[in-house]
Parts: sequence; C-alpha cells; structure tokens
Amino acid sequence: MSQISKEQVLKSLSKVDDPDLKKDLVTLGMIKNLEVGDARISFAVELTTPACPLKELIRSQCEDVIYADFGEAVELSILMTSNVTSIRNNAPLLPGVKNIIAISSGKGGVGKSTVTSNLAVALARSGASVGIIDADIFGPSIPTMFNCEHEQPGIIEKNGKNVIVPIEQYGVKLISIGFLTPPDNAVVWRGPMASSALKQFIGDTEWGELDYLLIDLPPGTSDIHLTLVQTVPVTGAVVVTTPQKVALADAQKAYSMFKQPQINVPVLGIIENMSYFTPEELPNNKYYLFGQNGGKLFAEKNNAPFLGEVPLVQSIRESGDSGYPAVMKDGITADAFNGIAQAVAQQVAMRNAAKEKTKVVEVNV
Amino acid sequence: MSQISKEQVLKSLSKVDDPDLKKDLVTLGMIKNLEVGDARISFAVELTTPACPLKELIRSQCEDVIYADFGEAVELSILMTSNVTSIRNNAPLLPGVKNIIAISSGKGGVGKSTVTSNLAVALARSGASVGIIDADIFGPSIPTMFNCEHEQPGIIEKNGKNVIVPIEQYGVKLISIGFLTPPDNAVVWRGPMASSALKQFIGDTEWGELDYLLIDLPPGTSDIHLTLVQTVPVTGAVVVTTPQKVALADAQKAYSMFKQPQINVPVLGIIENMSYFTPEELPNNKYYLFGQNGGKLFAEKNNAPFLGEVPLVQSIRESGDSGYPAVMKDGITADAFNGIAQAVAQQVAMRNAAKEKTKVVEVNV
Repeated sequence: MSQISKEQVLKSLSKVDDPDLKKDLVTLGMIKNLEVGDARISFAVELTTPACPLKELIRSQCEDVIYADFGEAVELSILMTSNVTSIRNNAPLLPGVKNIIAISSGKGGVGKSTVTSNLAVALARSGASVGIIDADIFGPSIPTMFNCEHEQPGIIEKNGKNVIVPIEQYGVKLISIGFLTPPDNAVVWRGPMASSALKQFIGDTEWGELDYLLIDLPPGTSDIHLTLVQTVPVTGAVVVTTPQKVALADAQKAYSMFKQPQINVPVLGIIENMSYFTPEELPNNKYYLFGQNGGKLFAEKNNAPFLGEVPLVQSIRESGDSGYPAVMKDGITADAFNGIAQAVAQQVAMRNAAKEKTKVVEVNV
Repeated sequence: MSQISKEQVLKSLSKVDDPDLKKDLVTLGMIKNLEVGDARISFAVELTTPACPLKELIRSQCEDVIYADFGEAVELSILMTSNVTSIRNNAPLLPGVKNIIAISSGKGGVGKSTVTSNLAVALARSGASVGIIDADIFGPSIPTMFNCEHEQPGIIEKNGKNVIVPIEQYGVKLISIGFLTPPDNAVVWRGPMASSALKQFIGDTEWGELDYLLIDLPPGTSDIHLTLVQTVPVTGAVVVTTPQKVALADAQKAYSMFKQPQINVPVLGIIENMSYFTPEELPNNKYYLFGQNGGKLFAEKNNAPFLGEVPLVQSIRESGDSGYPAVMKDGITADAFNGIAQAVAQQVAMRNAAKEKTKVVEVNV
C-alpha cells in the first residue's frame, strides 16, 4: 500500500454524515487530531455532546469507510470525544454556561423536578458538566431529590462582589431556595421577591464552566417564567406532562408561552411522565392510570419532538424521596432516563446547528 | 298521660348534646317549630349543615329521650333540617356567602381541583348551595372537570356595574379564567394581573346566596394566596397532599402560610389523595405508589384534623377528564368523597361555633 495522505483520509471520512445535523463529519469540523503514517490512521471524532446516542453508529461508519478505502490491514485508532456546542458567546450573564435549558410543565406535580434531577445526573454521568437552578421558589424539590436538604451554600467574594457557591452532589452543581430557608417555613412572597431570588441564582452564583444548566421552573406561566426569559437567553425548553387531560391542557399553555412571538424560545421536545404502572406481580400488565399516549399525541399535534416516556414505578418516587435519582441505579427506569437525556442533548445540538440564537425578551412585555 | 308542655319537651331534649359542638341542642338553639298536643310532639332539629354526618345519630338520641320521658305511645315527628352557620355578617364583599373555604396544597398535581370538584358536588347533593372560584389562573382545571369548557359566563348590569354571572353545572356555581380565555393559550401574566382577575371573581361576580364558596388555589404561596386573604376573610383552609415526601414538604409550607400570625386562617384539616392503587385483578393489593400514611402523619404532627383519604382509582382521573366528578357515581370513591365533604362541613360548623371571625389581612404584609 502506498503512503496514506491526510487528504485521502478526509475525503474518505467526508462520506460519513452526522445523522442529526445532516452534514458530513469533515464539513462539520468534527474530525480532530488526524495523524497518518505507514498503514496507520488515527483521529478523534468530536461529537456535539458526550451523551450522543449515535456515538457507536458514527464510530462504526468511520471504520467502514476507512477499511473500504484503505484496506482491512490499516491500523485504525478512533477516539470519540465531545465538545458541547453553544450559541451563547460573550454573554454578560452566565458567560461560562454553554446551554440553558428550561424544564417546564404548566401543571405542577407531573414530575418535573424528578425529570430534571434524573436528566442532570444522566448528563453528568455521560461526561458533561451540569448544573441545576431550582426556580420553584415556593415548592423547591431539588434539595430533597439530591439528599442535601441540610446543606448550606458558601459565599465567596469575587471581583468585589459576594457570590453564592452552588452545592455539588452526584456531579451536579445545585442552587435552590431550599438551601437558604428552613424547610417547614413558607416563603410567602409576591412575584417581584421571587423573581429577584431567581436573578441572584443566575447573576450572583459562581457557576463556572457548564455544558448544560437546567432550570427547574415552577408550575404556571407567570413571574418566574417571564423573569427567566427577560434575564438570559434560554437555549431551549423541555415540556413535561402526564397523559392526563388536565395536565396536557396546562402543558399546552406552557408550550404556547414559549412559542409566543415575543418570547420565542425553541421547544426541544416533550417528555411524558407516569405513563403507566406495572405491579411486580403482574409484569405484563400496564395500568394507564393517567390515560394512554397523551404525551406522544401532544407532541405530534404541536409538531414537537417526543423525547420519551417514563413509567410510573414506585422506585422512582422512592428514589426521589430518599435523595438518589433513579437513573443512578440499573434497570428500566435508568434506561428510560438515559434515553431521554441523550434525546435532549441531541435536540440541543440540532437546535444549536440549525436555529438562530435565542434573544433575551424585552423587559416591557 | 297528662298534657305535655313545651317546657317539658325542651327539658327532655336538653339531655341531647351535639357531639361536635359539645353543648345540648336546646342551648344551641337547634330545636325549631316545637309543637305539642295530646300525646303528640313535633319539632325540627336545625343542624349546622345539611351534610352533617351525625344527622341520624342526633335524630335517634332525640327519639330515645322523648320516648323515655313521655312513653313509647307518644306520637313523635322530627324533621331534620339545616341552616349553615356563618361568622360573616355585613360583609362588604360576598355578603350572601356564609363560608369561604380555601383549598390549597402547596405542591401542584396532588389532585386539589379533583378534590374541590368532588367536595362541591357532594355538598350540593346534600342540599347545600355551593360555588367554586377557580383561582388557579395559570392552570384552570375546573371547566374540564365540570364538562363546561366551552361555556361563556353572561354579564349583567347590577347597581350600574357590570357583573359576571357564574356558570352553573351539577348544582354548583362556577367561575374560572378558563371560561374567559381560549384553552390552548397561555395566560402569561405577572402577579398583579392574576390578582386582579381573582378580585373580579370575588367582587364583580353575582354569587347570590351560598352556604359554601370553595376557592381552588394555585400551587405555591404567592400573589393569589396573599390577594385572597387580603380581599376577604377566609373561614378556613383545607390542605390537600399526597403521601409523597416532596408533596408533604410543600403541604407543610401551605399549612405554615395559613398559620402565620399575620395571615391566621384556621386550617379545617388535611386530605390525603392518591393514597394507594388497587388493580381490579388484585382487589386485595394496595400499592402505596406515593408512600403510606403521609397525610395522616402530617395531620398528627400539626395537630390538625385528618379529613380522609382518597384512593388512586383510575375512574377518578377518568371522571375528572370526562367532566363528571367521581362522587356522582356510586362506589368506593363516591363514599370517600361524601365522607370527606361531611368532615369538611362538620369542621366548618365547629370552627364557626368555637373560633373568632377571620380577619382580612392588612395590605402591607
């Protein structure tokens, strides 16, 4: 075999497309550290997220084209790496955060915080750097779900300003009003007070570098939601619902809010929670306690990606209550959440490649 | 037998206590229209609510003392009536409403609107006049639960002012933002706008005479809650929770809000929803999907009445979604809600007899 050139390898690899971004790996600039030698090729494929569900597919397609063009005898080494994409640059607030993802539901109690916790842990375990802002000022669940209800965030001075240091648990950085007030006390505040707490969590908290910052929104479509979109440009929003009609009605309201022309936050997709219950004694029975396929039909109706469904499993609630997100254990639930985390990361990458920057909403909306 | 006097009958009846109010029926003024004749006694017992769970007990105790004192031969006729008590008089707002009951939960999605709907229908079916204000401006569920999503309330002129006429369904008067906005649209309002909608539902709506006006509160402890207690004195509050830890944490916040000295609304009791699931195929199995006894322990811890538990039955959710509150059908669920409605009515009567008027909260809280 003659000497291999880098150009030949790149030509070969340009036959492999990223199935999501629908362009080839070379055009997308995803081939890094290419080195060639005598019957030896090595390079890295830099994916748009460590949680990429297509990682193994892309690797094997690269192998296929290289072996086809240079023969099976070539010594091939492919490193799959990632560099999470972002459309945020030179942002005045949260400059080190690549993507801000709002998790909303319209209706409360559909498992938004459970989904947020499990998504965050799943993304962190895939290798991403992840944070959560618990924006549910009146019903903060994140401290319970991460088993750190009694932690207190530190305060440090930075550039002459006091900033909050998030709690770190299971590899995820966290901030919540729950860390700052006694658990049994009600925070009885009108909107502006709640909004100023959120602004502190965004502007006066030491987030550092993050691939994904998840915002666990409260139910409804009011002050906190408006303050969020008026304070930082949100990369995309995820809507969580159960299949129940009254939950879907409120999910529709949340969806419509993000779609309002003056708000205009891309919706990354829909997650259906509490899809069905399966008792251990009747493993083939699915009880659709809250109705069937509501989330999927909702996604179809709105032409939004359906990111996955989570069964109603006693252990998910028990995990939440005991402070260990269910995704940390093996099993059907962990699989569901890992799949959804991959789907969310995938949608973020596609959104970043295809759509314009989100704009901060004008304050006089 | 000698001629019977009214005094003798009253003396006899003064041996019967109202078990809740712990005073005798005569002292309480509950004996009405007493008539005596030759071996003939007739009177009415005016209970404090038509939903009184002790109705038959009190009737049989009256029979027992009369027969004991005047002989079995006496011709006795007892009419059980009711006149719902109130501590609201000369109220500038809602003058015809005897009792204002806030239904809250802290956390969303625990079934607050389901409980409100079923309570209202159960009270109405017992003979009470009942209304609901759906104060969940951002997630109104009442129109769906009453199968009148497409109704539009009329507007009439009264004393030179335009007032809203509530929708009437299943014997319950209803008002909701859901009647006034398209279902798919989000009401994206900051707190003051939402508060002014609530004020209209209270002050500019033609409620007429009502025994019970239930207020279905949104999740949280913010603008709507403050506006309610600052606008009208609330007779009492009911807290709905599931047995789940994160729901109990928020229920505690709602409870604490009502107990705050400057708010000071009596808590009538705690209702536990979604207590357990029983599949039809395994009628003896109870799956405590959300944990066990959380509501009861919460009530004990706070020294508040436990008003009852509602099982997680598929038909309840289906009833809610289809617009026929489950209490309208026979069965275990209807029994549960009827029992809870009686317990609530009982607590209202006890509260009215024992506790001071609730005060409107000063606006500068």
